[in-house]
Amino acid sequence: MRIANLDNRAVLVVGDPGNERGIDIATASDGRFGPDLASIYESWDEVRAWAADADVTDHAAIDRARLGAPSPAPRQVFAVGLNYDDHAAESGFEAPTHLPPVFTKYVSAFTGPDSEVTIPNGGNVDWEIELVAVIGREARDVDAADAWSYVAGLTAGQDISERVAQMRGPAPQFGLAKSYPGFAPQGPWLVTPDEFADPDDLELGCTIDGEEVQKGRTREMIFSVPALVAELSRNVTLYPGDVIFTGTPAGVGMGRDPQRYLHAGERLDSWIEGIGELHQRFVAARA
Amino acid sequence: MRIANLDNRAVLVVGDPGNERGIDIATASDGRFGPDLASIYESWDEVRAWAADADVTDHAAIDRARLGAPSPAPRQVFAVGLNYDDHAAESGFEAPTHLPPVFTKYVSAFTGPDSEVTIPNGGNVDWEIELVAVIGREARDVDAADAWSYVAGLTAGQDISERVAQMRGPAPQFGLAKSYPGFAPQGPWLVTPDEFADPDDLELGCTIDGEEVQKGRTREMIFSVPALVAELSRNVTLYPGDVIFTGTPAGVGMGRDPQRYLHAGERLDSWIEGIGELHQRFVAARA
Repeated sequence: MRIANLDNRAVLVVGDPGNERGIDIATASDGRFGPDLASIYESWDEVRAWAADADVTDHAAIDRARLGAPSPAPRQVFAVGLNYDDHAAESGFEAPTHLPPVFTKYVSAFTGPDSEVTIPNGGNVDWEIELVAVIGREARDVDAADAWSYVAGLTAGQDISERVAQMRGPAPQFGLAKSYPGFAPQGPWLVTPDEFADPDDLELGCTIDGEEVQKGRTREMIFSVPALVAELSRNVTLYPGDVIFTGTPAGVGMGRDPQRYLHAGERLDSWIEGIGELHQRFVAARA
Repeated sequence: MRIANLDNRAVLVVGDPGNERGIDIATASDGRFGPDLASIYESWDEVRAWAADADVTDHAAIDRARLGAPSPAPRQVFAVGLNYDDHAAESGFEAPTHLPPVFTKYVSAFTGPDSEVTIPNGGNVDWEIELVAVIGREARDVDAADAWSYVAGLTAGQDISERVAQMRGPAPQFGLAKSYPGFAPQGPWLVTPDEFADPDDLELGCTIDGEEVQKGRTREMIFSVPALVAELSRNVTLYPGDVIFTGTPAGVGMGRDPQRYLHAGERLDSWIEGIGELHQRFVAARA
């Protein structure tokens, strides 16, 4: 099953890649579910059962410009740093043996998959393609072996980061430097784990103006999606709709020699196997 | 004006300290506002105007055990580290010249003012009394001179922290180590800035079993409440109901020689001048 956020209404996605079509869930369920996305995650098991038998003949084209983040109003957003060995190394850190640093991306930075992103004045804006997991059932102290059952699905995200603000000060300023407006594009839709041959091994990457800058596989994560859900659930209670950015593989601009950052006019295209693409165009801040 | 969260319903608080009484806002406004707290902050200016003329004769006693956090469902939670010179020094950091490190306290840790807090197994649980500000109007790129007008009010908070998890790893694990269940008690109510002789200079402190461990004044903050609102609003958009933990003065257990942490059976009482008290009792985790 795939779920999209079209104008803040939950939509069931059908059709082949490149020809996706949408069915408004509130309309198709006679108001039983939706229309907003948060209520879909609150009733996730019931929505899944309903969707298995739903009449999906009355679908419409999806205008990507109207797509928002698949979970646009999470109560909690977790973002995991240094979760791939090769990215930890390029960042100058040893790979973590305990749970890597967890910070938040503030929800005011969330957008859909296709967007224009403003480069803050004086900022060094970097890219980080990440697999994003959305929680479908309240989770507290769950085992990794059961943890996939607490995940509604997966989507693609960019953990866009402004490195000057991030690195200034006595401790990393992760949350704010990664939460300028538009710095958390996600989508194009949520894909349930059963749609993948192996949800623990997806290829992901991104290009700048067509040049490949990151490419990796999620099986290289130090803490897999179920391991992250289990570890997080030992500290906090996870709620339906909560969002987890799972970390990025090597290839970010800060780790290059010389370092490289995004400039106005450049285009960042990101993709995850079996999910889809994100398209960001960067523009200068007004002087 | 004072607003409390009684069983997840917004209540107008009247009466003198020690004899506070409550008026259910949804009932008194004939359903125009509330009943939940989030909707109160969404309509903050209208609620204030209504409350100025509201009939407040029909009040009832407030059972503190039923109080929740004054803003229990914020979209964003900001917590500021190292915002008092003396606490930065005891933590081994230089006082920040730019905005101090900002992390989140996850909302699953929120409780009301009187609570029992479980000490995680093997944890070093520490206290941090903090002034907490709640946003009343959407804020983006605001000036410090105008910033108080974006603040709905102030309440008391404890930024309870588990130092083992916080200090383990390549960067501080602020968010998770400060978000175990019950680690963000707040209350007893929200007090609007006009209720204080000087909202930028409030005495605050806490005691353990009656022994004073922290005492300071909010005028000692490196970034005042309006400075924080202004600085945060340069990175992110602040929404009504958003919560800002503004940092703690000296006197935490980690900064002592020898270090001291909370044990099962101990009682932590916290207070802020003109707001009120928090009461936490600590208990051991089940083995």
